[in-house]
Amino acid sequence: MASVSSIEELIDSLRQLPGIGPKAAQRMAYQLLTSDKETASRLGNALLNAVKNVKRCPRCNNLTDKDVCKYCSSIHRDDSLLCVVETVADMMVIEQSLSWNGRYFILMGRLSPLNGIGPNELELGHLIDRASEPEVKEVVIATSFTAEGEATALAITELLAKHTPHVKVTRIAKGIPAGAELEYTDVNTVAQAMLNRRIRENN
Amino acid sequence: MASVSSIEELIDSLRQLPGIGPKAAQRMAYQLLTSDKETASRLGNALLNAVKNVKRCPRCNNLTDKDVCKYCSSIHRDDSLLCVVETVADMMVIEQSLSWNGRYFILMGRLSPLNGIGPNELELGHLIDRASEPEVKEVVIATSFTAEGEATALAITELLAKHTPHVKVTRIAKGIPAGAELEYTDVNTVAQAMLNRRIRENN
Repeated sequence: MASVSSIEELIDSLRQLPGIGPKAAQRMAYQLLTSDKETASRLGNALLNAVKNVKRCPRCNNLTDKDVCKYCSSIHRDDSLLCVVETVADMMVIEQSLSWNGRYFILMGRLSPLNGIGPNELELGHLIDRASEPEVKEVVIATSFTAEGEATALAITELLAKHTPHVKVTRIAKGIPAGAELEYTDVNTVAQAMLNRRIRENN
Repeated sequence: MASVSSIEELIDSLRQLPGIGPKAAQRMAYQLLTSDKETASRLGNALLNAVKNVKRCPRCNNLTDKDVCKYCSSIHRDDSLLCVVETVADMMVIEQSLSWNGRYFILMGRLSPLNGIGPNELELGHLIDRASEPEVKEVVIATSFTAEGEATALAITELLAKHTPHVKVTRIAKGIPAGAELEYTDVNTVAQAMLNRRIRENN
């Protein structure tokens, strides 16, 4: 550290951010130090505060600076519904879709044997405990529709069938994305959309 | 601040970085807090240290945490050569080209009347003082080949001709970029390359 200047250390640290290459890190550092020292101080403090204060919610694994996260502690959410997602980012996109008013459970990853992530690396035991709470009536599995996400969904389905047979287990729908044209949608997705067709209701 | 969580404040601060939108800021924040708290601490400290320690070099305007920057204080550089650039980033790219062993002077911008940057906003007085030092024999103007960069180069040429007539003033070459095909090069650049043609030497 003694021979590395503050600027080089800043550029090097910025490069560790996901998606930031050497050129972008350099540009950011120069802009922050040339015309935007206030932003630099604010971001520096925000990072150190977040590292100090943010921890995992003990009920759902969400990031929070409270004892229990806002989704688990809210009194306006339905305790009978539990949505299982892979990551905090997945949970956020569901929140932003305004389509869910139940609770969440974050697996912190998905099954990925090639990367050494088996059932023991995920929070599956924690999930079974959570799904076993008496008020839970339905668990919605919202893992991704990738090979690994599907394998994770299957493993969860089997685990829940064994440990909490009274709980209904559902999977979010696979189908044509909103705004997509059939002609340009891949045949696998079209086949799934045909198989999963639903009776059209008047609403 | 009281009602904003550490995570929201972090995402908001990351969004202030150049080129970072809301999605990227969210992804960065979650990755830093989920799997990379060490990087978050390091970057936080690097930012605060840089804000505290980094200042302008009084000779060339470069960013430095020393009294005088490493290019101005190096004893291996040629004092008779002074290269004028717009920004720290421009200076860095010349350094990385390994083509310059003189000193630098950073204007901190370029003439841009539409943005309210006239001769008084640039460090032109400072540049004349620097170019007036007796050891300076040549000033190379390395502003960009944009309209604003060219106007800045012209203004500097006129100022130096008036205040330091004994100093040779040169401009970096305009021409075909390395690796470019003539067929796809714009005619303005080709015309300049023809006009600026040089006698081919045997090396």
